Amino acid sequence: MAETNEIVYLNGDFLAATEAKVSVLDRGFVFGDGVYEVIPVYGGRLFRLDQHLDRLDQSLEGIRVAPPLDHKQWRGLLEELIQRNGGGDQSVYLQVTRGVANRDHAFPANVSPTVFAMSSPLGEVPEELRRGVSAVTMEDIRWKLCHIKAIALLPNILLRQQAIDQGAAEGIMIRDGFVTEGAATNVFAVLGAILVTPPKSNLLLPGITRDLIVELCREGGIELEERPLSEEELRGADEVWISSSTKEILPVTRLDGAPVGSGEPGPVWRRAIALYQTYKQEFRRGNRD
Amino acid sequence: MAETNEIVYLNGDFLAATEAKVSVLDRGFVFGDGVYEVIPVYGGRLFRLDQHLDRLDQSLEGIRVAPPLDHKQWRGLLEELIQRNGGGDQSVYLQVTRGVANRDHAFPANVSPTVFAMSSPLGEVPEELRRGVSAVTMEDIRWKLCHIKAIALLPNILLRQQAIDQGAAEGIMIRDGFVTEGAATNVFAVLGAILVTPPKSNLLLPGITRDLIVELCREGGIELEERPLSEEELRGADEVWISSSTKEILPVTRLDGAPVGSGEPGPVWRRAIALYQTYKQEFRRGNRD
Repeated sequence: MAETNEIVYLNGDFLAATEAKVSVLDRGFVFGDGVYEVIPVYGGRLFRLDQHLDRLDQSLEGIRVAPPLDHKQWRGLLEELIQRNGGGDQSVYLQVTRGVANRDHAFPANVSPTVFAMSSPLGEVPEELRRGVSAVTMEDIRWKLCHIKAIALLPNILLRQQAIDQGAAEGIMIRDGFVTEGAATNVFAVLGAILVTPPKSNLLLPGITRDLIVELCREGGIELEERPLSEEELRGADEVWISSSTKEILPVTRLDGAPVGSGEPGPVWRRAIALYQTYKQEFRRGNRD
Repeated sequence: MAETNEIVYLNGDFLAATEAKVSVLDRGFVFGDGVYEVIPVYGGRLFRLDQHLDRLDQSLEGIRVAPPLDHKQWRGLLEELIQRNGGGDQSVYLQVTRGVANRDHAFPANVSPTVFAMSSPLGEVPEELRRGVSAVTMEDIRWKLCHIKAIALLPNILLRQQAIDQGAAEGIMIRDGFVTEGAATNVFAVLGAILVTPPKSNLLLPGITRDLIVELCREGGIELEERPLSEEELRGADEVWISSSTKEILPVTRLDGAPVGSGEPGPVWRRAIALYQTYKQEFRRGNRD
């Protein structure tokens, strides 16, 4: 259950998480008809907010829901939510659904979207995870519009649980012989001196952290290619990483039970995580957006 | 919005639809993590209830949620719901989600499923629809576990709306050159003297009405094959039908703007709908289950 001291936002009101309820006819509840974002907050500041809100707008366009708020309104709402929850480091979650209507697949007319946001404390990424995590490969059984950050996440949930049941932290998905992404992360592989990550397409989520890693590695002189990554290349990679907004960059040191490269976090990952941490520190100081 | 006089069931209580609310942390709302059934009710009696509940159990198994109720309990609950809504002909909807928990992809421990059911009046299928509907073909972009009747229906919704936007009643989905099903229906095609419907697999929902049509057509001497149906065969078919629990069997008389066969409901459809209506009459009289 929600921590009882958490304050959430729902359709114009700030209220205790335990009090926040939606109609059983909300299309989020009966159809998974909505989209979401997860945004880290460091020192009370929203990290890469514009990028997250741009992606939100793209997701909304993908499901044909008009944006209920503009970026300025979102910022105001989320900053108030963060303050009401005590500031500091948080993980903000926001969700927009098509709204409440009698259950019919067709889009309803004259319905207001449901807007929901919550926030929870965000600790440092545990050192233990930075010493390396296990991943398992699995068939990517998801739909073909994975660039939309949809709340209809049942496939991702089943895949993530399947990974957990195998003692792994993440499932890395393979579609037609190529890596798409993790169940809730993007994937990178170091092949020789080159860092490779699959190109953006309808088959994977355009990760905000993925994009930042690409940007930082290029600035930092790490050779990087956005190109299809085959399952075979993944299995033979010197390093494998997974990335997400709240997990940042984690080295995958075991894949399907076998060591990746040396079986230890690799040198390219060390450079990348250092670049990432420097960026985050600069952001905390207000020097980066 | 829900019709205000409707009574719904939610986690042990019968209450007005407008009063029925779930936590924003229900995994149905944030993940589409649940399954559902739609069951027609004729003369106060639940049509093919055991088949629907068997499929529900299979869907629950597919997402690894223990059945919250056994068949006898479901029957009692749904019969009370039907009575509270005035009996007669209704369409019952039931939904089970994994329950309420802090948002984390992994299955939560010690959580009770959310059980929700509602019912709405079910009129006769409009004669107008029985004179023929339009359908359009579209790529099946959905996930690969379509045999699970999951509430994560965003793909189906987008496909259905795409059909509606093209002036059609339904979208018929094609995966790798073969018909899977409609956005919310199963598909049949008459090729010469033979009725063909795609075989059950993980790529389509095992429709209760589909199964009944197969049963009735076989009993009624209509030659039927459950085998892959190619897009080319669909386009050249003498008749195309779509089926669902509430729409029963509808003739598709225009496909992608072109007439199907004669452009009128065909003779095999006439035989099938007569068999179906006879069965329904017998059911109303208490002679069939």
